[in-house]
Amino acid sequence: LNATHTQGPAPIEFWFDFASGYAYFAALEIEALAERHGRTVTWRPFTLGAAFKITGAQGLSRTPLKSDYARRDWQRLARLKGVAFKLPERHPRVGLPAIRAFYHVERSDPRTAAALAKQVILGYFRDNLDTDDPDEIARLGSRLGLDRGLMLAGMADSEVKATARQHGESAVARGVFGSPWIFVDGEPFWGSDRLAMVERWLAGGAW
Amino acid sequence: LNATHTQGPAPIEFWFDFASGYAYFAALEIEALAERHGRTVTWRPFTLGAAFKITGAQGLSRTPLKSDYARRDWQRLARLKGVAFKLPERHPRVGLPAIRAFYHVERSDPRTAAALAKQVILGYFRDNLDTDDPDEIARLGSRLGLDRGLMLAGMADSEVKATARQHGESAVARGVFGSPWIFVDGEPFWGSDRLAMVERWLAGGAW
Repeated sequence: LNATHTQGPAPIEFWFDFASGYAYFAALEIEALAERHGRTVTWRPFTLGAAFKITGAQGLSRTPLKSDYARRDWQRLARLKGVAFKLPERHPRVGLPAIRAFYHVERSDPRTAAALAKQVILGYFRDNLDTDDPDEIARLGSRLGLDRGLMLAGMADSEVKATARQHGESAVARGVFGSPWIFVDGEPFWGSDRLAMVERWLAGGAW
Repeated sequence: LNATHTQGPAPIEFWFDFASGYAYFAALEIEALAERHGRTVTWRPFTLGAAFKITGAQGLSRTPLKSDYARRDWQRLARLKGVAFKLPERHPRVGLPAIRAFYHVERSDPRTAAALAKQVILGYFRDNLDTDDPDEIARLGSRLGLDRGLMLAGMADSEVKATARQHGESAVARGVFGSPWIFVDGEPFWGSDRLAMVERWLAGGAW
């Protein structure tokens, strides 16, 4: 997979859970940020569940006090940035079909997979997209020119399921416990409000 | 206590745990930030323990994965900002004597109490100050002109202890679950990396 990236500096790794409100805001900015510094973005959807088993945490939306704060903060961020934000009806969703669809498509077409990932998280936080429903994900993919039948088969494929799971496990093994999470040349940054720091890191090298 | 603030806009409330690394960085900047917008700062040390009972979380430094990330991030922030940062030998400390000393001094002298709070958190993250040791806190206070004997008596005073506890409980009742935590006219902001947003809020009013 990395063979496409042997030219130029390494891509930025963008790890995120499709149900992460802060990942939504980062997803809107990460590619332009990378481009400003001659980088590309490797999108890495995963589910935070495995990390939560180690940290003992739960998702923001399942945690007392934090849930109320996060809902208020997301709306405030959306107003500040002038972007849409609407929590889906059943939030949070685990979104395994969406994650598997991504890794299925990535095997043959990383660029379209990245576009799919972005459209999935935008759909989740704008249009009530059900990331747990393979049919909805396949329909979204078809709008990007992907074959509906192949996508449905990919989401059900045991090899794809294993790949998706392994990516999540590798994230946790590398210390990832939150979303969004960005690696720049191995340096970890957690949270959408660290994008400014990521940009300084890219501009000035390690400090 | 609020009688001193009836003129002009309400002070910014700065809630923090003395063992919070991110609070240290915010403590270095909060007063200048407030001053730029014609505000003062009400320092509000508390212990996060009560909030953790509700959220199920633990302190960063007691949480797997998060602890490693936080230590790396604090050093990185210190280098970026060009300030000292050294975790004390036994971290994290609860720091009840330091919290009680603050509320004891605040009864008669809020300004010196604020200076004490700032020196305590700077001492903790620079000079291994033991916030659990009343003698060390009293010695620090004496450098600010406070009477050592009165401070020691204040830290042991049951009324002061109750006041300190009540402040912590009121924070949790208002939804505070992290440190640092800032209220601007009732609007909550969590985290040192939200200072830029606090500043925009102060500059532009609610958006």
